[in-house]
Amino acid sequence: MAEETPLTVVTCTAPVNIAVIKYWGKRDEELILPINSSLSVTLHQDQLKTTTTAAISRDFKEDRLWLNGEEADVQHPRLQSCLREMHTLARLYGVEGELSEVARQGSGSACRSMFGGFVQWLMGERPDGKDSVAQQVAPETHWPELRVLLLVVSAEKKPVGSTAGMQTSVDTSPLLKHRAEAVVPQRLARMIQCTQQRDFEGFGRLTMQDSNQFHATCLDTFPPIFYLSDASRRVIALVHRFNAHHGKTKVAYTFDAGPNAVIFTLADTVAEFVEVVKRSFPPEANGDEFLKGLPAGPASLPGELLSTVVQEPVPGAIRYILHTKPGPGPQQLDDPTLHLLGTDGLPRPSA
Amino acid sequence: MAEETPLTVVTCTAPVNIAVIKYWGKRDEELILPINSSLSVTLHQDQLKTTTTAAISRDFKEDRLWLNGEEADVQHPRLQSCLREMHTLARLYGVEGELSEVARQGSGSACRSMFGGFVQWLMGERPDGKDSVAQQVAPETHWPELRVLLLVVSAEKKPVGSTAGMQTSVDTSPLLKHRAEAVVPQRLARMIQCTQQRDFEGFGRLTMQDSNQFHATCLDTFPPIFYLSDASRRVIALVHRFNAHHGKTKVAYTFDAGPNAVIFTLADTVAEFVEVVKRSFPPEANGDEFLKGLPAGPASLPGELLSTVVQEPVPGAIRYILHTKPGPGPQQLDDPTLHLLGTDGLPRPSA
Repeated sequence: MAEETPLTVVTCTAPVNIAVIKYWGKRDEELILPINSSLSVTLHQDQLKTTTTAAISRDFKEDRLWLNGEEADVQHPRLQSCLREMHTLARLYGVEGELSEVARQGSGSACRSMFGGFVQWLMGERPDGKDSVAQQVAPETHWPELRVLLLVVSAEKKPVGSTAGMQTSVDTSPLLKHRAEAVVPQRLARMIQCTQQRDFEGFGRLTMQDSNQFHATCLDTFPPIFYLSDASRRVIALVHRFNAHHGKTKVAYTFDAGPNAVIFTLADTVAEFVEVVKRSFPPEANGDEFLKGLPAGPASLPGELLSTVVQEPVPGAIRYILHTKPGPGPQQLDDPTLHLLGTDGLPRPSA
Repeated sequence: MAEETPLTVVTCTAPVNIAVIKYWGKRDEELILPINSSLSVTLHQDQLKTTTTAAISRDFKEDRLWLNGEEADVQHPRLQSCLREMHTLARLYGVEGELSEVARQGSGSACRSMFGGFVQWLMGERPDGKDSVAQQVAPETHWPELRVLLLVVSAEKKPVGSTAGMQTSVDTSPLLKHRAEAVVPQRLARMIQCTQQRDFEGFGRLTMQDSNQFHATCLDTFPPIFYLSDASRRVIALVHRFNAHHGKTKVAYTFDAGPNAVIFTLADTVAEFVEVVKRSFPPEANGDEFLKGLPAGPASLPGELLSTVVQEPVPGAIRYILHTKPGPGPQQLDDPTLHLLGTDGLPRPSA
């Protein structure tokens, strides 16, 4: 019987990030190099995370991958790019590699999830992409009052995937080119400043403006792309009425390539805004809890707020709210019982 | 008894125009001077027109105005501008005045209705607006095959009026500024070329792109403005599927500051497209005719077209279609029985 070479098994969790200065459009499709820098907030993994186990052995003859328990095709070009980069890094074991550059080649915006808190993805200038990397702007502890509410709207099929959508935008939208070249640079600088100063008024306003501008460039694409649904537009109108009632930016929305709203606000506003959302989109009786994640205290809404902000309730338009906050970057799990792969390198039935 | 001074009564009809290169944003609010030139098609008055009677007498002590039989406030600044200009022109009776400059001061886009066919409104450069006037690009006889379908969607209240909306856009949208300065000039030149060459492929594509870009700048406005409704977006998707099926631009949409779609197409496509609209938005049984205006022949849709183009019909989303075509400019009516004002200068009960 041949001696077995040692098997290394590592399990990591990784967070989701939400862009407040949007990434839309590549200048290099293969290396995934963007036409503008972007900025995001990393969400806390107590509410949302992905878990990945890697098993490495010299005995393994090929790369294999399982996604949600189903074996996936490792021939996908983006996956091949990542595996190639990781094999290179594995030979340099012990040397700290630029991991965000690897992540970028899997899915552009994923590179921002390599750090916690507030993260920018620098567009870079080099053709080989070595300077198109993620950088932490501020850690997750920087703005303890900041809260995030994911408003999950009733599912409709996404009309155009983001990879195809952004390529069409680059090819056809004159406004996208202008946005990337002339609007984003100063907007990003201002957003970093607002973040560093914990200036919610500025942070929130810029977040909404940049979301709207991203969706504007989708509409300027030919044929036009619509990611906002009727429910999305109702949330937008609700947020503006809420802020107008308070005379300042207390909540801010942002939307990615889909209809779900992400709301940024401060801890002292969560309970009131959640109640306003409940009143505006009364949950349909389905037994599920409407507010998931972090708790929100009770809120009694003043009659004046109710009458000016809550208009024509639309039952069921929002399925549920996930309440979370900024969080740290990827975490390595020490507990071996959490590994998704067994000592044979195959998915564990229990996982 | 004093001798009565003669009363002059004139009745004119005026057309509606539909912009294919949009006007959105003023550089001078008072004189109504736009931030970019625009281009429109004047619709035929057999299907849509306004009728105005003016009665002029030295005996009249004041200006009075009736709109749809109701007396209106003549103190409105825009109306005052028009009356002032008209009084000036009246003293120059017999001299041909620049009437489009007067019309512009009533409502910017109205100046393009001073001519038939294809009309551009030059933005001009002078601070006094004397060069911001309408010009005919081609007469209504230039493109005999061109047809226009107004798809009137179920009424929702317009969220933001165009006067307030465009001012907010000028103040807050970086994309609008770029559109006006860098996109429209070359787009307008190209559109005039397509019109002159009766190139429907180019004309239709540019029409759709410019409509989308206008609505994109509305979305880039803060707070964002949405004029397209769910029905509008369904019409947009339908048009793209129809054109994709035929492998070329056979129909083109454009939307102003509201949800109604205006479709440009050629005579040989009307029957088929009207049938596709009927199948996609089945009229609700209300006794009204679905197609008004010019007739459309019968059309039998091939099964393949039906299956690829007509998807998930939405009954009642389109209330009716008005079928029309390019037409002439304002007309003076010779028949005195059509005057809306009597010999006393007051509205006639019969009118």
